[in-house]
Parts: sequence; structure tokens; C-alpha cells
Amino acid sequence: MSEGGNRCGESELIARYFAPLATAPGARRLVDDAASLKIEPPGDVVLTVDMVVAGIHFLDGDDAACVARKALRVNLSDLAAKGAVPVGYLLALALPDDWTEEWLATFCSGLADDQMRFALSLYGGDTVRTTGPLSVSVTAFGIPGKGGMLRRDGAQEGGRVLVSGTIGDAVLGLKLATGEARAADWGLDGEEEAFLRDRYACPRPRLPLVPALREHAAAAMDVSDGLIGDLEKMCAAARLGAQIEAARVPLSPAARKALATEPALLQELLTGGDDYEILACAHPAKAADFIEAAQAAGLALHDIGSFGGPASSVGVIAPDGGAMRLARGSYSHF
Amino acid sequence: MSEGGNRCGESELIARYFAPLATAPGARRLVDDAASLKIEPPGDVVLTVDMVVAGIHFLDGDDAACVARKALRVNLSDLAAKGAVPVGYLLALALPDDWTEEWLATFCSGLADDQMRFALSLYGGDTVRTTGPLSVSVTAFGIPGKGGMLRRDGAQEGGRVLVSGTIGDAVLGLKLATGEARAADWGLDGEEEAFLRDRYACPRPRLPLVPALREHAAAAMDVSDGLIGDLEKMCAAARLGAQIEAARVPLSPAARKALATEPALLQELLTGGDDYEILACAHPAKAADFIEAAQAAGLALHDIGSFGGPASSVGVIAPDGGAMRLARGSYSHF
Repeated sequence: MSEGGNRCGESELIARYFAPLATAPGARRLVDDAASLKIEPPGDVVLTVDMVVAGIHFLDGDDAACVARKALRVNLSDLAAKGAVPVGYLLALALPDDWTEEWLATFCSGLADDQMRFALSLYGGDTVRTTGPLSVSVTAFGIPGKGGMLRRDGAQEGGRVLVSGTIGDAVLGLKLATGEARAADWGLDGEEEAFLRDRYACPRPRLPLVPALREHAAAAMDVSDGLIGDLEKMCAAARLGAQIEAARVPLSPAARKALATEPALLQELLTGGDDYEILACAHPAKAADFIEAAQAAGLALHDIGSFGGPASSVGVIAPDGGAMRLARGSYSHF
Repeated sequence: MSEGGNRCGESELIARYFAPLATAPGARRLVDDAASLKIEPPGDVVLTVDMVVAGIHFLDGDDAACVARKALRVNLSDLAAKGAVPVGYLLALALPDDWTEEWLATFCSGLADDQMRFALSLYGGDTVRTTGPLSVSVTAFGIPGKGGMLRRDGAQEGGRVLVSGTIGDAVLGLKLATGEARAADWGLDGEEEAFLRDRYACPRPRLPLVPALREHAAAAMDVSDGLIGDLEKMCAAARLGAQIEAARVPLSPAARKALATEPALLQELLTGGDDYEILACAHPAKAADFIEAAQAAGLALHDIGSFGGPASSVGVIAPDGGAMRLARGSYSHF
């Protein structure tokens, strides 16, 4: 590329911004064609990839450090759901023509913060230019428990449906960030608005749940495309149905406030994307211990229903006790 | 997304096109959040990522199967250079709004062909939409020899500079494909033109060279950004210089013909990108055996010079015996 202004070429860009992130010895400070990851003792590596595109998965004006964290954390959320402890990641970054070094420095500071927070190293990268929007593809890998990767298809008849944290904050945060809704309409104060917007902008991968998941869960997945839609996927994988009670789905105080002013939001809370919580199945005899272990790890885990019934069908009991009809189960990022 | 025409949504798209490519048991037919890769006995996994963008790394009208192969093979070329046998890959695909199922089916047929050819499985994927050009990010992984990953920085003083195959075909192929040059100007027949264009469109990862590389090479990398520039990188990694003879750089009959009609092309042959050959260093006492082992594997390997001299400086002896001055060492994809 022709190098305009004060911007540097790919080699300097790697040396200046990315090499300092390649802290693992096997990452070879990104001066090689590839990285090597030592697996000892023998076992499994869990691998996952996600791509985020400006204007689709995050907002054009989002803070670069936030974009970096989101691109990384959506993958860490997958690893957490699989009972895997993250080790590192590879990054492919497509920069539009108007990229600036300031943006990139902030982006990399977001990565650096999260590498410290989650004990990760960058293992490889590719930086290219694009005539389109900024796009970030992260491939993350981690090490599962002795029993191997926790699977999505392990739900059993009669198993409890458990979900971590709170559901629906991100979809409300997105509405506030895009101006589709105003905090005042929902009676929210500035702190509550900031909480919801942050829940959209910055997923919290539920890694503290990993030991409890390994110990107690029969199946797990992360909730990224909406609770109901993702539960449908979990049901389809196990050829089971499920029934949950909307009133038992954990909501944050801010979401509860919004819902009180606009009851029709319930459907969006249950089907909106970007929760990045963990959905799990546990044997009824194990559910209480699972919830207790999660609490000990600092995370709320809620029992919202049970698996069983006709394959793939998810029934939702409305707060009034009737059956809730949902127009669609999930948000599609595609 | 709103699903227009006869196109399917992401779930059906995965089930129809990508799940059949996820042949390894650990890939879980892409019905899970992540895949697991079993490493037994304990050892290293070699990881690499590359992204290709329409209009930048391939031409907009390029055949979809070709695009798939190129996206995959640029990574396999890295693995080959590291002495690693590829095992699988993860794919992140950003599709523009005007994608068609026909395009995707052809793209996936290109992946399927190469999976058979190189004994690979898809291990995970993410499909997103983009308002920009089609972009493909592939993360590939493989298993190196017992000594671990072959490194870029192992070149030694007095070591021989060896290069596989032929150099410069792709840069000529690109000129022909874009119309910047015409085959007739270079006295090429249709077969020669097709050969050069194919060399640009479809890299041949030099995987048959892996056993010989493991046995004989002190250092290796793949030549993707131009021979001279990549040799400079190899020299910089080892804090050495190198001297090569332009006349000993292997050229295809088609490239030789073009060069005979236009001697100024020499610089472009030596610095143009997309060769996807292997550049290696071998101890002088091992070079002959290395070349013989490569021949036995069906690949030509040429001794084009030696490592040594001031750090990072690459001297090129012109065909007339004088020192060749190069305006730049490499092509930048960035």
C-alpha cells in the first residue's frame, strides 16, 4: 500500500503494535510464518473462530479498545461454555483505507488489557487492507477439562435448564446506543443506561464458571443469538424439547425497570442477541450444587426450566401462566 | 438478515455447505460452539492465519473454487515452510449483500477438493455479512516434526540459500490477468499464458518438501511477498546477510520467454509476490542431499547463493556479473 501521512507499513505495524502482544514463547514475537503451541500432557485443544464487522457487529463509532475486547471476548465466551481455559488467539484484521495509528494503538491497548485479564497471548496475525468496513476475525483456543470439551448435545430428559448472569441487557443497550430507544422512556438513570450500553459493547465471558461447568454440567453453550433461539439449538442437538418460565429468566434491575414501563419488551429480552451468558443442562440432583459452585465463583446461575418433550420445541410460560408465543427465537448476526 | 430470493439463512447455510466439510470427529459437524483437536502423543501444534480480500488479494471475477483454494493454500504454504503436516482449518467468511448460493456452492467445492487433496478437515467457521468486499480468513494448523517447528531464524553463516519450484510466475500471471500485459508482447502461447495466470490464482503449497525440510533445513519460510524481500526477512531474523545470483534463480520456461523479450522484468520476478515457494537455509555439507531428497519428492530445489555478510543486507549479482540494484525488495499485500 502507499503509506500516507504518519502511518506505517505492515512490518513496522507488526513490530510496533502486535509483536508486544505475542508474549508466549511459541508465538515467536510474530517474526515467523507461524506459531507453535505445546500440548503437554497429551489432550485436547478447543478451537473457535468469530468475525466481527463494523456497522454489523459493533457500531462505527465504538471505542477501538471496546471493539478489540468484543472481538476477543465473543470467542472466550465460546471457550468458557465448552469448559475450556483460554490460552491464546490469532487475529486477522482488515483495515479500511482511513485507518489511523491512533485507532490501532487504542485497539491494541484493548487487546493488551484483556490478555492480562485472561492470561492470554497473541499467537499469530495477519493485517490486510480492505475497501470495506473494518473487520476483525479472531481464532481462539483453550484447554478443556480431563473429560474433554463440554458439548452442546448432552442435554438429558428431565435435566434442568440453567442460565448465568442476566439476559436481555445487550439488546436494550443496543437500542439505547442506536437511539432507537431513550433511557428516559424506560425511566432509567444515567448509571442504568451506561450499564445496559456496556453490556452490549463489552461481553463478560463467564470464565469463572469453567470449574463448575466441568464438574456439574451435562451440556452447555453460550447465549449469543438470543436465549430462546440458542435453547432451541441446544434442544435440536440433543433431540429434546424444553420448557422454561419467563418469570424465572434472570433480568438486571435496569432491564426489569425497562420491562415495567414497556411489557412488550419481554419478547426482545428473551430473543435478542449478544448476551454472552452460559446456558447449561444439569441433572436435577446436581443443579443445586452447580448453582452453589457458581455462586462461590462469583456468578449467579438460575434454574429457569427443564428439558424434555417433543424434539426441538421450546415452550415458554408467560409471567401470567399462559403459553407465550414468540415471533422468532433468535437474533441473526448474519 | 432478511433472506432474499432463494438464499438460505446462516443455520441452513452451515448445514448445507459447511457441515459436510467438517469431517473430523472433533469438528462436531459444526453443531457446537467450538471444535476439539486431540494431540497425542504430546507435542506441538503449528498455527497460522491469513486473510484474503476481494479486489486486493484476488480479482473480483475470480472463480469461487479458486478463491477458496487460494485462501486455504496460502496457509498450507506457511505450514509446509515450518515442516508441519496440515491437519485442519477454521474459516471466517464475510459475504457481501449480493452473494449467491451458486457462488457459495462453488467456493465450498473448492474447499472440499483441497480437503481431499491435502487430507484436511474444517474445524470451525463463522459466516457473517459485510457491506464491503468478500473476505476470507483461514486459520490453519498442523503437526511439526519431532524437532518442533522449523524456524525462520535458523540461517547460519556460510549456509546455502535454497529455493523451491520457480520464482516470478505469479507476478507475470497477475499482469496478464489484469490486462497490464499481453501474452503476445512476451511471445507466449495460450498454454504459457494459462500456466502463468494459474500460478497467480492457485498456489501450490510445497507440502511434499516437508520430510526433506525436517531432515535437512536449518531455517525455512515461504516466499509470499517476493523472493528478495522474504530473503531479507530471513536474514534479519538470523542477523545475517546473504548474497544470491539472479542467474541461478529458477524461472519457468514461460517466465524465461517473457524475460527474454523484456529484460527489465527481472526485478519484478525477483520481488513480485504470490510465489508460494519455499526458501530455506541448509548447511553446505547438507545442501546436495537436501536437493536430492526434494527431487525424490518430485520438487526442484535450487541453490541460489549463500548466507553471510552484514546483517540483513541481501546482495544480488546480476546476470552480467555486476551488482543489481533493486528499488524495493517485496510486494506488500497490505
